[in-house]
Amino acid sequence: MMIPSSSTLKHPLSYFFEPETIGVIGLLREGFFGGYVVIKTLLKNGFSGKIYPVHPSYKEVLGFKVYPSIREVPSPVDLVLIITGNRSVPQILRECAERGVRAAIVVSDGFAERDEEGAKLQKEITEIGKKGGIRILGPNTAGIANPSKGVLPNPYELGYDRLKSGGVALCGQTGMINPQAFPYGDLGYGISKICDFGNKCDVDECDLMEYLGEDPETKVIVFYLEGIRDGRRLMEVGRRVRKKKPILVLKSGRTEEGAKATSSHTGALAVNDRIFDAVCRQAGFLRLESFGELFELPKIFESQNLPKGNRFGMVTFTGGVGVLAMDEAIRLGLRPSIPTAETIDKLNSIYPNLGKTVIDIGPPMAAVNDYLSIYPKIMEAVLNDENIDCLFNVIWTGPSRGSIEEYIRIYRRLKEINEKTVATWIYGPRISLIQELTFSLEEIGFPVFKDLDMAIKALALASRYSLIKGADRDEEDFDT
Amino acid sequence: MMIPSSSTLKHPLSYFFEPETIGVIGLLREGFFGGYVVIKTLLKNGFSGKIYPVHPSYKEVLGFKVYPSIREVPSPVDLVLIITGNRSVPQILRECAERGVRAAIVVSDGFAERDEEGAKLQKEITEIGKKGGIRILGPNTAGIANPSKGVLPNPYELGYDRLKSGGVALCGQTGMINPQAFPYGDLGYGISKICDFGNKCDVDECDLMEYLGEDPETKVIVFYLEGIRDGRRLMEVGRRVRKKKPILVLKSGRTEEGAKATSSHTGALAVNDRIFDAVCRQAGFLRLESFGELFELPKIFESQNLPKGNRFGMVTFTGGVGVLAMDEAIRLGLRPSIPTAETIDKLNSIYPNLGKTVIDIGPPMAAVNDYLSIYPKIMEAVLNDENIDCLFNVIWTGPSRGSIEEYIRIYRRLKEINEKTVATWIYGPRISLIQELTFSLEEIGFPVFKDLDMAIKALALASRYSLIKGADRDEEDFDT
Repeated sequence: MMIPSSSTLKHPLSYFFEPETIGVIGLLREGFFGGYVVIKTLLKNGFSGKIYPVHPSYKEVLGFKVYPSIREVPSPVDLVLIITGNRSVPQILRECAERGVRAAIVVSDGFAERDEEGAKLQKEITEIGKKGGIRILGPNTAGIANPSKGVLPNPYELGYDRLKSGGVALCGQTGMINPQAFPYGDLGYGISKICDFGNKCDVDECDLMEYLGEDPETKVIVFYLEGIRDGRRLMEVGRRVRKKKPILVLKSGRTEEGAKATSSHTGALAVNDRIFDAVCRQAGFLRLESFGELFELPKIFESQNLPKGNRFGMVTFTGGVGVLAMDEAIRLGLRPSIPTAETIDKLNSIYPNLGKTVIDIGPPMAAVNDYLSIYPKIMEAVLNDENIDCLFNVIWTGPSRGSIEEYIRIYRRLKEINEKTVATWIYGPRISLIQELTFSLEEIGFPVFKDLDMAIKALALASRYSLIKGADRDEEDFDT
Repeated sequence: MMIPSSSTLKHPLSYFFEPETIGVIGLLREGFFGGYVVIKTLLKNGFSGKIYPVHPSYKEVLGFKVYPSIREVPSPVDLVLIITGNRSVPQILRECAERGVRAAIVVSDGFAERDEEGAKLQKEITEIGKKGGIRILGPNTAGIANPSKGVLPNPYELGYDRLKSGGVALCGQTGMINPQAFPYGDLGYGISKICDFGNKCDVDECDLMEYLGEDPETKVIVFYLEGIRDGRRLMEVGRRVRKKKPILVLKSGRTEEGAKATSSHTGALAVNDRIFDAVCRQAGFLRLESFGELFELPKIFESQNLPKGNRFGMVTFTGGVGVLAMDEAIRLGLRPSIPTAETIDKLNSIYPNLGKTVIDIGPPMAAVNDYLSIYPKIMEAVLNDENIDCLFNVIWTGPSRGSIEEYIRIYRRLKEINEKTVATWIYGPRISLIQELTFSLEEIGFPVFKDLDMAIKALALASRYSLIKGADRDEEDFDT
């Protein structure tokens, strides 16, 4: 008996991210992990659809009737979450197919990442999904998140109620990108979608890329991959989607030993790193280099305009930083901007010798007692300079809490006039003050990066994407 | 009239770091920068020597009599700090020479970093110092710090009272390494000495390296350089000092544009980066790659034993991190350890399939309700394994504050048995919990790194230094 789902014309992946009914199958005992947590999190975060817990030995959980099997559930189910022993999964999926379930998140582990037998089991469930018309995410996944709709079917309790809605989509072959692992609630940007592929037996990076390309909430797409399924298709999809949104990619398994570790993590076959690099270049992906970058770099695309070119300006409180930042900027393909004669005059009239490529506020700060009185004028001159495409902005927290409040007032005004791509780095003698100012500036709309190199890299990525987009536009103009 | 200093047999640089008398010349008005601040900071931090403020237009400051010139000061002066306009500096230094002053920190700017005229002025003061027997630090420096003796003659007010004494010496061509810029008070390690070279007209990296090599408080020496003065001498000194202590070096001005920025920061001539790399290899320096590493990596040497080799073990809560960490470790010259058969048996008896190179606590954590009950046994087995030289230890903060307290209890016990080099990285859904656990573990004696790559790099540096030291020892054995 094939019962049609409640909605039939949507994108196949929308049954994962926008389901109207969710079945939660297995592990209903209280704890910080499992189906009990899934139901609690869905309730707490305003999921407006129906929830059906399934377990042979429970009668009721959190006020919901528990069904002994998915077959007994009275209405159509869009999405199921399976958290059982690995050997029970095939039979459950067969029953789901009978019931017309469209999407299944298989949290259970013990598949290709474990051994031969697990690999066979994984093949079996993949076949069941294909035949039964169920798209499978996983196995061995920590699930997905769509915070704007309260769709947070994830087996870990933590961090979900602190997830903010926003423009960054993060997908990866690790639960490390889920909120139980990463402090999204403390960060200055919001999330559109999160998706942990797990072993990636069915739903993969190409599917996600297509779906997120169309997703109106997503402004930037970020992937962490251990392997790729189909390089050709990835390039083809990438070329289309990058015209709409930047795609950032981190890939592990670069070394032989890393590849071995990959295989026992998600059972993925590693791809030769040089081949992958070629795929990235062809597809116009922005390749990331470290795990920390996954969470830091996307925000430049969430809140800032794209730069018109790669001319890089800098305002700093210390020349030492200027030197390091310039090195890194050049290495990453930016080039130093030369301010216009008008800007140079303006800056030199504010303080002698200030009008240079690296605008060093150190000397006036030491000399002018109330240096924050000249600071807005300096920043305005720089942000209005037509020779500067993007700006590395270094802020010293200043001598007291009063400075923090003053900066916040100044940046609120600067936000009104700013159209450049600005990446900020804050330093000073107290972490608490750095964090306070970081939080406030990000709220105003200036992304703050946790170190100097990260800020420069964000500008370089924005500039590279702007270049890719420009080239795509030229090509289209030529074709039409 | 040449009055001998109060102590005459010390290392020339000890007049900077352990002066018995300090003259503070210029800028005595209240504010967050200047001589007034210097005196306040010295008083606040228990400097036990004498302080002589010098200024023509003040009579008294902070209870001290102000002398119109250094000539009027009644007793010998070891160290002076000069914070005046650049043109006054030569005459002041001449008077200091007359008075037998041994060391001068020239904070004033407007020398080689500014223009031709400044470069001439710098040459002039260098000559005066040479003839008059005064060692000069700077010009254009933010000074030095020796927190264990309360010697903090620095023109910025901030951060000095929060500086902890410890084993890390930081020297650099930027005030960015001083406590007004960096939140040392919030970090888990202590400082032996800080020194900002400024334009480096006299005292340079070789002088500091020699002095710090002998300094009993210093366990690890860290340099940020924009240029080097004498490559041959640097190699010669480096080869001697590295036998006692690890020497970490970051150099900027790698690119032509960075070199240009260097010149307008400290007037330094940039050195070809490949030549510098050769100097580092020859001298056995551990070369750093980014500004953030300056403050993160040294602590591995402050609190951990050196590893016996480069065999790298890993305990992680997530396989994804395992893959990334393995890639980075291999790239940096570590190799994966294979636990002994005994350890593998022990781990597999704690939880099936646990005994591997990458020990992944993810599966038992999801399956065992009270996973922290098996955690100490896993860690003990790993820390006692003779096939593991150094360990990358990943901690998930856990589901609640209770876990934090439990971890602290566990690590206190582990500290008793641990002899390995351990670098820890903590992740989780709340920054506040990560910070709390970081602070506690560092206090216990396990350094925690702010990201994955940094932790791996710390282990790689420790292993590389261990190798260098071993080779030096072999050579000495051969020679004798």
